[in-house]
Amino acid sequence: MSPFTGSAARTTDWRHLRCEITDGVATVTLARPEKLNALTFGAYADLRDLLAELSRERSVRALVLAGAGRGFCSGGDVDEIIGATLAMDTAQLLDFNRMTGQVVRAVRECPFPVVAAVRGVAAGAGAVLALAADFRVADPTARFSFLFTRVGLSGGDMGAAYLLPRVVGLGHATRLLMLGEPVRAPEAERIGLISQLTDEGSADEAAQALARRLAEGPALAHAQTKALLTAELDMPLSASVELDAATQALLMTGEDYAEFHAAFTEKRPPKWQGH
Amino acid sequence: MSPFTGSAARTTDWRHLRCEITDGVATVTLARPEKLNALTFGAYADLRDLLAELSRERSVRALVLAGAGRGFCSGGDVDEIIGATLAMDTAQLLDFNRMTGQVVRAVRECPFPVVAAVRGVAAGAGAVLALAADFRVADPTARFSFLFTRVGLSGGDMGAAYLLPRVVGLGHATRLLMLGEPVRAPEAERIGLISQLTDEGSADEAAQALARRLAEGPALAHAQTKALLTAELDMPLSASVELDAATQALLMTGEDYAEFHAAFTEKRPPKWQGH
Amino acid sequence: MSPFTGSAARTTDWRHLRCEITDGVATVTLARPEKLNALTFGAYADLRDLLAELSRERSVRALVLAGAGRGFCSGGDVDEIIGATLAMDTAQLLDFNRMTGQVVRAVRECPFPVVAAVRGVAAGAGAVLALAADFRVADPTARFSFLFTRVGLSGGDMGAAYLLPRVVGLGHATRLLMLGEPVRAPEAERIGLISQLTDEGSADEAAQALARRLAEGPALAHAQTKALLTAELDMPLSASVELDAATQALLMTGEDYAEFHAAFTEKRPPKWQGH
Repeated sequence: MSPFTGSAARTTDWRHLRCEITDGVATVTLARPEKLNALTFGAYADLRDLLAELSRERSVRALVLAGAGRGFCSGGDVDEIIGATLAMDTAQLLDFNRMTGQVVRAVRECPFPVVAAVRGVAAGAGAVLALAADFRVADPTARFSFLFTRVGLSGGDMGAAYLLPRVVGLGHATRLLMLGEPVRAPEAERIGLISQLTDEGSADEAAQALARRLAEGPALAHAQTKALLTAELDMPLSASVELDAATQALLMTGEDYAEFHAAFTEKRPPKWQGH
Repeated sequence: MSPFTGSAARTTDWRHLRCEITDGVATVTLARPEKLNALTFGAYADLRDLLAELSRERSVRALVLAGAGRGFCSGGDVDEIIGATLAMDTAQLLDFNRMTGQVVRAVRECPFPVVAAVRGVAAGAGAVLALAADFRVADPTARFSFLFTRVGLSGGDMGAAYLLPRVVGLGHATRLLMLGEPVRAPEAERIGLISQLTDEGSADEAAQALARRLAEGPALAHAQTKALLTAELDMPLSASVELDAATQALLMTGEDYAEFHAAFTEKRPPKWQGH
Repeated sequence: MSPFTGSAARTTDWRHLRCEITDGVATVTLARPEKLNALTFGAYADLRDLLAELSRERSVRALVLAGAGRGFCSGGDVDEIIGATLAMDTAQLLDFNRMTGQVVRAVRECPFPVVAAVRGVAAGAGAVLALAADFRVADPTARFSFLFTRVGLSGGDMGAAYLLPRVVGLGHATRLLMLGEPVRAPEAERIGLISQLTDEGSADEAAQALARRLAEGPALAHAQTKALLTAELDMPLSASVELDAATQALLMTGEDYAEFHAAFTEKRPPKWQGH
């Protein structure tokens, strides 16, 4: 537990998703398989709040984001979200859309890598959640669809118009966000949208293995790599090398760096502490 | 017609290019086929002014940029532009180069998607015009050449050093802009420079079909997707998700979003209004 | 020799690397083949100082960065650098890491293109040096490994978390920097990390040929192309087209642009002056 803990109690009961933490790996499962894990207001809010809590506590070193059942996530629920927003006033509409953006910021800014395990559909907000993850471990059934324009909305939802060009380039991103057509696993791999392609049915297992490896390795080094990748997308070269220098100087005072050198000298594998 | 119309008359006669508007799709054709549509001062100025007029009027929902004859555009005319610039003073040189940059900004910033239909040569300024478009629909004869260094100039012409790394990555962009070598259709598709590869001879038809589809769909959603993709290349993540939230909240008050929900509920295709 | 030369003498004797200049092409060779050209403090400092001197003098129009022996560069020496940094105080650690970042900034900001000739290992700081070059000419034995996390450090070393996403996209960059796994030539070519793939054993020769071609061509045009590519990664579109306009107006007053027009008119190849 972090010493920087305030009065707010840890939430033990997440009602709109499942969360298990085992030896530093959190597994967050969207668990509404009968609706292909369509997101509700509660699910977005839980993702936002859960990521905030896990970011404070420092007990988590890697997180797997997965979907129960046949698919990853079919996006915002047509009835419970689209229907409801049609009755909202301006302030409520802004509140809702800010909340979904906060989830994406939380995924990009939490101090541990996030591994999305993608099988089947990753549509709308589900596609953006996978896009915001650090790794997309997908099997051949994976199908990404940024289908916002198909419901009359902007393809730039939850940061997608920021993130997608930085992952696959502006040309592919324009095509995917403007037309909302599905991208199947082979194309997704070809354009750089998939981090690791697995055998059919093995995405969850491979995502767990990757998260386990990240958590058991030099976890602070992994966390800082993520933080710098996120920050330096928005920074010039000159400031980036300065941030790198300060970060590296800090990590050179850490236990894992000394441990690497000791292990190398003693010709044995390092025993990582994660800091 | 937009209510935000001033006193300036609409230009009905474009002398340096062809422009036809049919049901919301503008087709702008570089029409100097005997010179592979080499650009003249008049053609650049017409592109700048035409895009400004079309952006004000809001009668256009998608635009096809095409070339007459055997190729798309061979770039600035060697005699009429390179020859003439050799006699210019400093202020005139700056004026000319600002004008060409204004054309690219207009393509990126106009409130409708631009589809370039590329057959044969797309060289120099012609390559940058295609690059600035939202979609490059090309057939196997397409050949992109950023040949500015071949005439003793910087490869960073008309925003190419900004745009190309964001489309194909810094490595490919450096190679293409520094060496000015032609990129043929297979490589262009592989590195993400082509949005849609068609059969030989079908680029114009496919570009029209795509523009028609964009114009007949939720056109304001498409326009906003383009606006966010353009803007968020220059914005940090935090501001991007805020811009997305405000944009989406706005579009959620629009007719097309309500129409999607009604159509979905009634199990029929939506009838898009474009706003 | 540039007229902008101060009192500082030119360094004629570089002890930690080899430098030869022939007709405008500098060849800088990391020359510690018995250690796979592992970098020492002296080698970093020499690279920093050499690039600063060459940038002032303007006698160099292209630079080849190569490694002696079996590989390009295995990165910071485990004993001489990792061992030594374990004994450093905070200020020294920051100084060291700033120095390595200065080398990368110098590679990106020097006024001539840099061609890395990559055979065998390009690991750690060696991978980042190659990444910072304008061209990576590699043969099938090339193997890039951003293995910083493997020693307990951040993958964002020497600007890698800034540069790599801009070369291969955020997805691939996250995978490579976080996991530190080797990227062999076929994958490196597929994701855009290699500029030119040569036959086995031909990387050095091909890099020399490319540098020679760059130096003998319109060298100022090449230099400005590099400068704009570097600067416009950090600039918005609007400022980029303005920078392009001013740059192009300047180059249109140069000898090479007039020479191109004369040569074109006389149907002969241009004789480039490089300015």
